[in-house]
Order: sequence, then structure tokens, then C-alpha cells
Amino acid sequence: MYFIGVDIGGTGIKVGLTDEMGNIISSGDCPTYVELGYERIISDMSDKIIEVVNNAGIDIKDVKSIGIGIPGVADVNGKVYYATNLKWTNVPLGELVRKKFPDKKVKIENDATVAALAELHIGSMKGKGTGILLTLGTGVGGGIIINERVFSGAHGIGSEIGHMIVGENFYDCNCGNNGCLETFASATAIIKYAQKLISEGRESIILEKAENDISKITARTIFEAYKEKDEVAQIIVERFVHYLGIGIANLVNVFDPEIFSIGGGVSRAFDFYIDDLRIEVSKHVIFKDVPFGNIVPATLGNDAGIVGAAMLGL
Amino acid sequence: MYFIGVDIGGTGIKVGLTDEMGNIISSGDCPTYVELGYERIISDMSDKIIEVVNNAGIDIKDVKSIGIGIPGVADVNGKVYYATNLKWTNVPLGELVRKKFPDKKVKIENDATVAALAELHIGSMKGKGTGILLTLGTGVGGGIIINERVFSGAHGIGSEIGHMIVGENFYDCNCGNNGCLETFASATAIIKYAQKLISEGRESIILEKAENDISKITARTIFEAYKEKDEVAQIIVERFVHYLGIGIANLVNVFDPEIFSIGGGVSRAFDFYIDDLRIEVSKHVIFKDVPFGNIVPATLGNDAGIVGAAMLGL
Repeated sequence: MYFIGVDIGGTGIKVGLTDEMGNIISSGDCPTYVELGYERIISDMSDKIIEVVNNAGIDIKDVKSIGIGIPGVADVNGKVYYATNLKWTNVPLGELVRKKFPDKKVKIENDATVAALAELHIGSMKGKGTGILLTLGTGVGGGIIINERVFSGAHGIGSEIGHMIVGENFYDCNCGNNGCLETFASATAIIKYAQKLISEGRESIILEKAENDISKITARTIFEAYKEKDEVAQIIVERFVHYLGIGIANLVNVFDPEIFSIGGGVSRAFDFYIDDLRIEVSKHVIFKDVPFGNIVPATLGNDAGIVGAAMLGL
Repeated sequence: MYFIGVDIGGTGIKVGLTDEMGNIISSGDCPTYVELGYERIISDMSDKIIEVVNNAGIDIKDVKSIGIGIPGVADVNGKVYYATNLKWTNVPLGELVRKKFPDKKVKIENDATVAALAELHIGSMKGKGTGILLTLGTGVGGGIIINERVFSGAHGIGSEIGHMIVGENFYDCNCGNNGCLETFASATAIIKYAQKLISEGRESIILEKAENDISKITARTIFEAYKEKDEVAQIIVERFVHYLGIGIANLVNVFDPEIFSIGGGVSRAFDFYIDDLRIEVSKHVIFKDVPFGNIVPATLGNDAGIVGAAMLGL
């Protein structure tokens, strides 16, 4: 039996055909024409699905299901409440895809949730039943797996770990709240904090690395400066670790998963902060003598989206 | 088929025999002789189980399982890591009870988790699959139900919702951390905040109600003063609602349960704060247009412990 996995992003749509182990047999992609509306995106995606199946030389009858990862949130029937980068609100994606492929099971989930499922099947969380993926990028995304199934709550809005409030911050989150984990532990968060410290007059080699242009500071320049023992970079990374530690400890205290996987751009600096992060988590965990889930880097790259989406059909 | 439910508290042990609907057929209790050690407690409990079964006129063979709620945390095998009020550390409760009742299934869970299960079967969360009970008392306890089963994580340490860090506070939690939900939303938390404001010189009728003795302030005196529009009491209840709202919104953003149930002593004032609490939660929920779980008062009193423990055997 075969499975289709689709990863709809703001710039491109990736489609893959996998077996039940998550091995990709055939794949393809096309641009996401956001401005042309959701009907066009769904039509392009459907054409690509048929092409990918044909390229593999198999019959569409042998495809069990179509799983789709979206940069947003959908309810259990696949109605997409929001997908900001696609400019979608209340798009009945599940219903429309079921019309095009009437005999297939269609499942739709948030892209971080889908990536967590891929990490569970073929990546860093392989062999575990219960795990949480945190993606640290522009924002902080979360994917939760319980008993080998994706968990996204009763209304499909769970696993928004980036918007767990963990403290009080000097700037508000895009969501309107103050203190979201995302405002402490994303690339954006550490850049904003670097900009704040430097514009307050702190001297740092971060600024040189950013061509003396505060707007050109990136997570990479901060971690490079950290490696070179820059004092401001130490302060920034310590704060990042402190609040990420609180966020993960909150998840230990509430969810207690077997494993945590860290993905996204900021996970490239994983080796710089993992030791301090484990210490920080253990400080904030309520039961100090009980083991908690290990924290590991995510291992899947670009294919996580299509593999995880395909595995929604299992 | 019948089920035994046991509620081991710091002062008393309650034992009940129920049917599969959670109806109590027979029950009894005895003191908890904490100072005499765990062997004595287990022995007293076992005697009481036999007595309760005999009193019901049924054969112990017809009892399917023994479920036990403890004021602490146990692993999946029923080893109790900690139960502070019982002075227990690493007590192999499950193993010892299985020795006494070799043919019975034995399950051990935290008392708040057990109470959540009772609320799900016969109380405020009846008919729901996924729900969270918050008990607001001396501390803040939490019980999580997912797909009609108790959820306590991979190592048995999940659902410690009172120790989710949600902000920064003027005093540290007993657990050693700063900012735990328990330090904002328990009876202890509001008493401490009242004491702080009054000792800073704020005038309030709370003090009169406490016989002009700051150490006699209770949650009840605060809510009485709140009802009488006392300004300091307004400030205290607003802060309580603010942080409890953040705590519940964090659980919406991460867990998204069908329902929240509020128990414990502070739930007696539920009607005073529920409207403001719903507003505060909706402010901090990430998806403003998507429904979230209703917040209701817990409906079960003292029997929740034995009924929930019995239902662990289902």
C-alpha cells in the first residue's frame, strides 16, 4: 500500500509518494500561487499528485490516503481555520480534496505536527511513542505525538507551543500577547534582544559581523559571536537557554514525553547550547530525581514535510 | 464486575466498592498512620478493602481491579516516587498491593488525576473524551484525560499543571522555582498577595474580616471582601484571574481539551470570577475565532477520590 504526503508552503508545494515505512518512492513540486487563490493551489496540488503517482508507475487505486501539512491550523474535518502565509481563512481543504479523490482518506495537519510525525517514523524520535518536536525558526512551532498518533487537541488548535506564556518580555508577540515562548526562543527573539542590547550602547562583535548594520543581525551572527566568547552574545544565549529551558520544563511537568526533538534554523547551533539547556530544564522540572525525556536535534530536513504528511494515513 | 477505589490522604484512607458505572456500593475509611510507616498504611488499607467487599456481600473474586489515588507521583508500575504528606519516597506500593491481592489488576495515580477521571465518568466532564481538571486549593493540582484515559506522561510525572511557569512572582514556589501557576492561582497565592498588599500599608476590610490578624487571612475572607467591592480584594482577584487565565490559555494552546473543570477550595468562589476568567482566557488564546473548551466547576466532592480510583480499572 502507498501513501501520498503533501507539504504546502508559502512558496512551493511538495508532493511525495511513500511506502508504509516512509520511504519516498517518487516526488515532485510546483510553486504555490498564493495570489491566485486556494482553488488554484488545490488544483495544482491535485495535478502534481497524479503526476507523482504516474511517475512511480503505480495505480492510484493502490494509494491509501492523502495527508497534507499546512502552514496553519485545521479542524478534524480538514477545514483550514487560518494559514496566514497562504492568505487562507476557513478554507474547506479536506472537503475539496475528498471531492477530487473520492475514495481516499484525506488528513490535514499543521506542518510542525506533520514534521513531528516524520521525526517519529524515520528521524530523531524513531522508536518512541510519545514525543514533542519544537521548531525554532522565525517563530517557534510545535508538534506533539502521543501513543504514536499526532495530537492536536479537541478543536485542532493544540500544540501551539510557541504561544505558551512563560514569562514577561520587553516586546509583545505577533499574536498580541506578552511573554510567549516564541518571543524568547526563536531566531527573531534573539535578534530582537541583540538589537536592543546594542542599541542601548553595549559593545559587541555581533555588530561587526552584521556589517555594522543592526538590521543585518541574524541568529548565525549571534552564535558566531558566542563561539568567540563575545560578552553580549553570552548574555543573549543565556537568556535564550533560560526561557527555552522553562518552556521545555513546562512541557515535562505537564506532558512528560519520552523525547524532545529540536528542529528549525536555531537547531543548527544545537551543540552550542544543549548542555546548558539540559541543566536549565532540570532546574525547572518539578521532580528532580525522576528522569525526563532526552533532548535531541531533529534529523530530517526538507523531506520531513512530505514523509510526515504521508504517515498521517497510517 | 466490581471495582475497588482507594483514596490515600495524609489523614485518612477511604475505600469504596463500585460498579462499572462508578456507583458506590459499599465504602469505609480508617486513619492514615503516617508515623507508623508505609507497611502499616498498606496493611490497614488491605484490611479495609476486604471489609468493604464483605460488607457488600460480594465475593472478592468478582472484584476486577484495585485503583489507588495517592497525594504524590507514581511510575507506571505503581512505584511511588514521592508522596510528601505520607513521608514516602520510592515506595513500591503497586508491587506490595499486588502481593496482597495477586489476581487483581492494580493501578496507582496521583489524586488530582484520579479526581479528573471521576469528573469524566460521573461529574462535570461527563460525556467528554478529553478534559483537564484543575484543583485550586493550598496548591494547584492537575488531572488530564485524553481519549477517556488518564494521561500522566511517559515517566508518570506529567499533569503537574500547578508547576507550569507562567510569569514572574514576588515569592518563590515550594518547588524552588519562580513563577509557577500555583504561586498565582492557589488559596495560598491569594493569601500571600493579600498579606503583601496589607503589610505595605493598603487599607482593606480583608484585615477586619481576619480579626485584624494578617495571619488569619483566608481565601474566604478575600472573596467576601471582593463581594463587598473592597478595592484591595479587587486587585487580588484580578491578578488571580489574570494568571489563571494565562495558565488555562497555555493549556488551550498546547492541549486544547474539550472541557476544563475547576475544583478545590477556591472553586467555591467560582461564580465570582468565571465571567472574567473566560474573558482573560480568550485574550490569551492564540486562535481567537476558534472555540475552546468550556470552563465549568467540578461537581464531585469527597467521593471523587474513590470513584476515580475505581474507574482506573476500566
